[in-house]
Formats: sequence, C-alpha cells, structure tokens
Amino acid sequence: MTRTLQVDLGVRSYPIRIGPGLLANPAEFAVCAGRPILLLTDRNVADLHLPTVQQALGLADERILVVDAGESAKQFVVLEQVLDWMLGARLPRDGVLIALGGGVIGDLGGFAAAVYQRGIDFLQIPTSLLAQVDSSVGGKTAINHPLGKNMIGAFHQPRAVLADTEVLKTLPEREWLAGLAEVIKYALLGDADFLTKLEQQRERLLAREGDAVAPVIEHCCRMKAAIVAQDERESGQRALLNLGHTFGHAIEAEMGYGQWLHGEAVAAGMVMAAEFSSKLGWLSADDAQRAKALIQSYGLPIQPPSTMTAQQFQQHMALDKKVAAGKLRLILLQQLGHAVLTDDFSPAALQHYLAQACEAQAA
Amino acid sequence: MTRTLQVDLGVRSYPIRIGPGLLANPAEFAVCAGRPILLLTDRNVADLHLPTVQQALGLADERILVVDAGESAKQFVVLEQVLDWMLGARLPRDGVLIALGGGVIGDLGGFAAAVYQRGIDFLQIPTSLLAQVDSSVGGKTAINHPLGKNMIGAFHQPRAVLADTEVLKTLPEREWLAGLAEVIKYALLGDADFLTKLEQQRERLLAREGDAVAPVIEHCCRMKAAIVAQDERESGQRALLNLGHTFGHAIEAEMGYGQWLHGEAVAAGMVMAAEFSSKLGWLSADDAQRAKALIQSYGLPIQPPSTMTAQQFQQHMALDKKVAAGKLRLILLQQLGHAVLTDDFSPAALQHYLAQACEAQAA
Repeated sequence: MTRTLQVDLGVRSYPIRIGPGLLANPAEFAVCAGRPILLLTDRNVADLHLPTVQQALGLADERILVVDAGESAKQFVVLEQVLDWMLGARLPRDGVLIALGGGVIGDLGGFAAAVYQRGIDFLQIPTSLLAQVDSSVGGKTAINHPLGKNMIGAFHQPRAVLADTEVLKTLPEREWLAGLAEVIKYALLGDADFLTKLEQQRERLLAREGDAVAPVIEHCCRMKAAIVAQDERESGQRALLNLGHTFGHAIEAEMGYGQWLHGEAVAAGMVMAAEFSSKLGWLSADDAQRAKALIQSYGLPIQPPSTMTAQQFQQHMALDKKVAAGKLRLILLQQLGHAVLTDDFSPAALQHYLAQACEAQAA
Repeated sequence: MTRTLQVDLGVRSYPIRIGPGLLANPAEFAVCAGRPILLLTDRNVADLHLPTVQQALGLADERILVVDAGESAKQFVVLEQVLDWMLGARLPRDGVLIALGGGVIGDLGGFAAAVYQRGIDFLQIPTSLLAQVDSSVGGKTAINHPLGKNMIGAFHQPRAVLADTEVLKTLPEREWLAGLAEVIKYALLGDADFLTKLEQQRERLLAREGDAVAPVIEHCCRMKAAIVAQDERESGQRALLNLGHTFGHAIEAEMGYGQWLHGEAVAAGMVMAAEFSSKLGWLSADDAQRAKALIQSYGLPIQPPSTMTAQQFQQHMALDKKVAAGKLRLILLQQLGHAVLTDDFSPAALQHYLAQACEAQAA
C-alpha cells in the first residue's frame, strides 16, 4: 500500500509518496518525464539500490555521480565537485537532479540544486529512516563547516519525495537505531500519545516489521509537513524540530562529523534537553526519566561523549543558528509532547548543567 | 537631494536610496542598528570609501574583510574564504553583512549572505555605476565557474540599497563607460524615449554631471524594480534584462573573466542582438544601425573580440541559463525599446550570423 502526503507550500507544494517498491516503478518518476536528469548518490546506496532506479529511469551511467558515503561528503570540496559535474554535464535550468541516499546525500544534493543556476528542481529519494522521517521533508539543505554543522545551506524544497519502505531493510543496525532517534523526537516535541505508542511498539519497530514501520513514517512526515507548512523558513514553530539538536550538533562538531551518527548525537542531546528542562523545574524528574528510558530502550546513547567538556559544548553552542540578539535559545520541554523554543534560562544554569552532565560522564 | 525607491516584493520589499553623500550619514544605516555587522569590500573600494563607511558605522577593523578587486573574486575559493571569515567572526543569523563595492562584491557578498546559515540579511552599497543601475537591484547573486558566468548562485534580496552618487566620481573611465552600457540596455529593451534622451545627453553623461547622472540612475532602478516586482525569479519578463548578455557572457567566459569588463561585453552583445534581430527581419537595418551608433558614441565596443570564433560562441551559449527544452532562447529586439525573449529562430540562422560577425571582425 502506497500513501501520499502533500506538503502545502503554495507554488512550492509537493507530494511525499510512502510505500514498498516505489523505486522499481517508472510511474513514480513522473516529475522527471521528458526532462534532462542527473542522479547523485553515495557508494553504499549505489551498491544496494542504484540498479533498481537506473532501470526504472533508463538512465545512462554517465548521468550518475557516486560520492563517498558518510557525513564527510557534506563539505565544501565535495559540493564543488558536484557542481563541476553538473556544469560539465551541461544540465539546463529545466533539468532535474535526483538525490538518492540518506540525509547526507539529500542535504548535499538539495543544496547543489538550490545554487546551480540559482536553483533547479530536485527529486528526493531518501533511503535511510532518518531521511524518510525527517531530513527529506521541508527543504532544509546544507553542508557542514569545521566550525559548525549545516552552517552553509539554503531552503530549497524538492519537487517530490519518494520514501520506499522496502529499502529500509538494507540499513545497518546502527543507522536504523539512529533513525529511530528522530522518530522519538517527534513524540517528545509534540505528541504524547505517539510517545506511548513508541513505548508499546518497541520490539516491532526494532525488528523493522513493515506494518509497524510504514504508519510511523507517515505519522512523522505528517507532523513535519504540518509544521513546515506553517513556518517554512523557521521563524518560529519549525525550530521545535531541533529538539536535542543544539546539544547534538555540538557533539557532532567536537567529535568530528560521522564519528557519532547524527541520530545518536540527537538522542544524547534530547536526554540533555530533558534533563536541563527538569533542572529548570519545567519537566518533572519522572518525565525526564521516562524520556531517557525510552531512548535507552531503543539502544541509543543517553550521555555526551566521555571526552567532551562543558567548555567545548559552550563553544559550539555559541555559534548555533538559533542564537538571537546575542542570546542562545534552546528547545526545551514543558511536558512530554510539548516543546518550546526559549531563552528563558540563565547562562549560569546552563553552564552548571553542562558541567554536571560532562563530569558525571567523565567520572 | 536624496531619492527613495521601493522594490515591491511583499515581505522581501526594500528601499533603494539614491543621492550624494549617503555613505557619510549614520542615519542611512538604520537597518543595521543594534545588530552585529560584518563588512565585505575589495581593495580598490577600501582605499577610496571604506574610511567613510567605517566612521559612519563606528566599525572596528576586525569586522572587515577586504578581497582582491576584480571579477576573479567571484570564484569558489573566495566564496569559501568569505564564509570562513563569517563563521570565524561568529556572525549570528540575526547579523547583517554589508557588501561595499561594485557588481562583483554585491554578487559575492549577496551569495555569501544567501547561504550563510541558510540566509541572513545583507545591505548593499553599490559603488560602481553598473552596480547602482543594475546588479544591486533585484536580488540576483552568484559566483562564476570556468564553464560559465554566474552559474552558481541564489535569488536573495538585500534589506536595503544605498546608491551614493558621489562615489561615482572616483570610478576609472573604463568602468564608467561599462556602466553606461547597462544604462543603454534599459533604453533598448524597454523605453524608446529614454533612448532619445541618451543620444541627447551623451556629453553630460560622459562628463558625469551630477544633475544628469542621478535622474538616469533613478530611471534605470525604477525600470528594473518594476520588472523584478512582477517576476522575481525570472520565469518571464525579467529575462529581458539580459539583453546582450548571452552573447556577452560568451565573450567574458572565452576571454577569461575580467579581461573584458562585463559592461563592455554586454555592449558588444547588444550590438550582436540588434544585428541578429535585423537579419531575422524583425528590426530595420536603420534601427540596428542607430543602436550600434549610440553604443559606439559612448566609447563602447561594438564587435566581438577578434580572436573569437563562431564555434566558441556556440559552445558557451549552449550552457546559457535561458536554455529550455533543449532550445537556446535569446533576448532579441522587435523594435528599439521593445525586447522579447524568444526561441523563434533557426539554429542555422544563428550559426550563420555568428560566423559572419566573427569573420568580419577577424578580417
């Protein structure tokens, strides 16, 4: 069964298709019909899924660029390589770039499409759980910088998203779990009932049972699509989707991108956000503990890296994109299922919490 | 006397201020008040005008980046350098980047602002005639690629434009003339009365008489603002502003960026567009000659470089951003003061014209 969701953004609206076997079906690629196409993917995904897509599209080898897998592809030099390739292939402004891969390929390909000839269409085919439930929806594209994650990028919506649930079976276990971290994020930030469901369905989701997984993907995409439709450029509510990300980005940047998977860093970051919310007296200790237990039960990290110091956290967090008027803002929890973007905490309280969290872990 | 124009683009609307002495007046920088600021400029402009701006803003030296002057700044490696600097300075998303300089600095700075943290505000202070009448209005930003001019970029509107007419007196003669090429462009593409005015006021404009120059800048900005307000992302009418640019970009790319100034290449390109329009029977031979004579009377080139071949033109033009459905589209003249975007010509006719134009020049 294939589900279709619409992301409502006026002239930039687009459909998300969710279901098994989409990649093998030529009809799913209607948006590309009769147009020049290029396809960007990474080595891991190419080995697993490129032949299927290539056959569905009848795409010649020279229309494909395969980059190294992993977060290291989201850097300036690789972006330049992608743009060189697009220009060398003489892709016209009415051509389409297909981004076949996880969050890294979506971010890199989407950003390349955003700036190539000041913006061309792209089709997003997310192959990881993380990309299907999160990064492929909403048009955020970016590359990293040594001084911060996703610091260089653009808002550029895809023309369509194809989330083939069949491909998720090929994900390494660690990536599957990292994707579930983003699923848990939706529950914590905005849906307490969904949180209960994730507690109950843990075993089926860990086992990747198709009829448990597909509705979860659809639910997350619906939540994200609704938020993005209200706040495309993140002037308000969309920031809530960054729950756990300010702490998480600091971990990723400090450890070197790719050492911790994004979802792993977000998992630890969500625990930190819950704990800090509890220290501020917003969230009960029981609720913070419930969030932590859920994250742990999905095999995800619940503490910062043992080598990281509070000072390192603060240095990275000072450059967060949510800093406004010189103040750091964080996504914190008022309840489980209710996050807020706030600067209503003292820097001293944050510093104290970070010191405590890092000491506990280093001990 | 200071004039104010509004570019109407909904939430992205902004004012263009035109007049003498703006840079020395702190009140003109209201959009920056109380916000973190960085300023990008080039070596030539820094020598002439940076102290004035720095004093008006009270800006510390370490908030300023000075890049080499010239078109070579519009390349990937310099963009990376600008972004490194912005991140190193910890500019937050609510900060402002000021681009102080000609078209190159506006394009480079505007593009850096477009992709820094997915887009921040920028204030444009155009210091060349070309930038004041054209490139500072409308939000087109870009860098070049060896395979084509402005091939990597974004639409990103400034928050305000300050066109100080006083600074134009310091322009080298060659740049002044190159700017006048873009002024002539407005007349040819959309305003026959303005064409007559440019014929009549030639001596006063060449002498840079303030009360002749300021109304001309305002007129060009008004024409451009009206076009941009109707077609921000160039899906139609805005393309007319590229009169002479498809031929001109080919000249710039083939000769190496900066060998021919942009306005010089556009001047020769406009003559070529007029001649080709005449060959197609759209424009009378007299009118094509009148356009050519006007351009020549302003001391601008009216022929392609003697070393360029028809084949070289065609290679560059095949990658033009206006190519759609595999066909090259050109801005051609139906009358003086009336341009159209069209693919209604045979490739053979274009090839024949290019061969003729290049042979005539090489002979």
